[in-house]
Amino acid sequence: MIKLYDYLPSGNGYKVRLLLTQLDLPFERIELDIVKGETRTPEFLAKFPNGRIPAVEFEDGRRLFESNAILWYFAEGTSMLPADPFARARALQWLFFEQYSHEPFIAVARFLAMYPKLADDRRAGLARIMKLGYDALGVMEAHLSPREWFSDGKYSIADIALYAYTHVAGEGGYDLEAYPAVRAWLERVSSQPKYIPITRV
Amino acid sequence: MIKLYDYLPSGNGYKVRLLLTQLDLPFERIELDIVKGETRTPEFLAKFPNGRIPAVEFEDGRRLFESNAILWYFAEGTSMLPADPFARARALQWLFFEQYSHEPFIAVARFLAMYPKLADDRRAGLARIMKLGYDALGVMEAHLSPREWFSDGKYSIADIALYAYTHVAGEGGYDLEAYPAVRAWLERVSSQPKYIPITRV
Repeated sequence: MIKLYDYLPSGNGYKVRLLLTQLDLPFERIELDIVKGETRTPEFLAKFPNGRIPAVEFEDGRRLFESNAILWYFAEGTSMLPADPFARARALQWLFFEQYSHEPFIAVARFLAMYPKLADDRRAGLARIMKLGYDALGVMEAHLSPREWFSDGKYSIADIALYAYTHVAGEGGYDLEAYPAVRAWLERVSSQPKYIPITRV
Repeated sequence: MIKLYDYLPSGNGYKVRLLLTQLDLPFERIELDIVKGETRTPEFLAKFPNGRIPAVEFEDGRRLFESNAILWYFAEGTSMLPADPFARARALQWLFFEQYSHEPFIAVARFLAMYPKLADDRRAGLARIMKLGYDALGVMEAHLSPREWFSDGKYSIADIALYAYTHVAGEGGYDLEAYPAVRAWLERVSSQPKYIPITRV
């Protein structure tokens, strides 16, 4: 069975849990507490040198890390990833947008709010983090205003990747009031068959 | 012809210039000065809502942004991207590693050094930026020590993506002395046929 190294509050982990559940792919979840450094042990780093979850390990020993690369691998050949080359590139565009322009702000604001007593150098830059997170929400709002989904007119891993931290952006202090297209899209995602909430497995 | 919106000092732009050159795909380069805000004009944002280069526009009006998604699109079906599904996922893993754990530190340190008088909130966090950039170099060194390339035993877009800012890491104050496998790999990349330097087009 697929082993998923995971951390339940993580939106990046949730992406993989949600996709595997929606694809009916069974997996064993191994919970690691990132705040306690459980992804930075010599044993974990020997398998996954970047020291982050989610990470997957197959029965034959093959391993893969980076949440969006994992989504891509499992979505290949399913309805969750388009077949057309340009539509695929556009799905990938949104996956990179999520990791570069969205997650480092919207997920980080939530993380800092979840652990208010944790020393973290990023706390001093919170105003910039909040601003750039709102910029990402603005890009999403503009894209979704005339559309239902991020890629190719249907629900795909581009939606899963962006949904993961957007739907809990409020936990980091973001107000989605001014983003009606984003809010409607969040509802569409959470209405998909076999949907699971972020902290239920 | 393909239009590439670009900024010559950008490693992200260089990735696309290098790949298109190595694939013999002709392109027209449109230089935009990111420091002067030329990627944040209403005209550019109407085409590319994230306001970043590189971005490509095709003759039929289709558009694509995010450097690594652009690499993936053009590399598909060539020797620069493996055919095996798992090898592809691993190449993608390194592309995401580059954008999440490498570029935000190694490229940003270089940017801040290139424009020492530019007001930038990130300057206060430079010590953390330098540390995390070295962490990324450590992950690369560990991967490359027993290997020649990032993905599937041969030169691919995973190498182009990681090469772009690693080979100019010194401009941001990084010392690669302790990373001999990385230095040997930089030499291998720059010895590839049809290689072009970062600021020559």
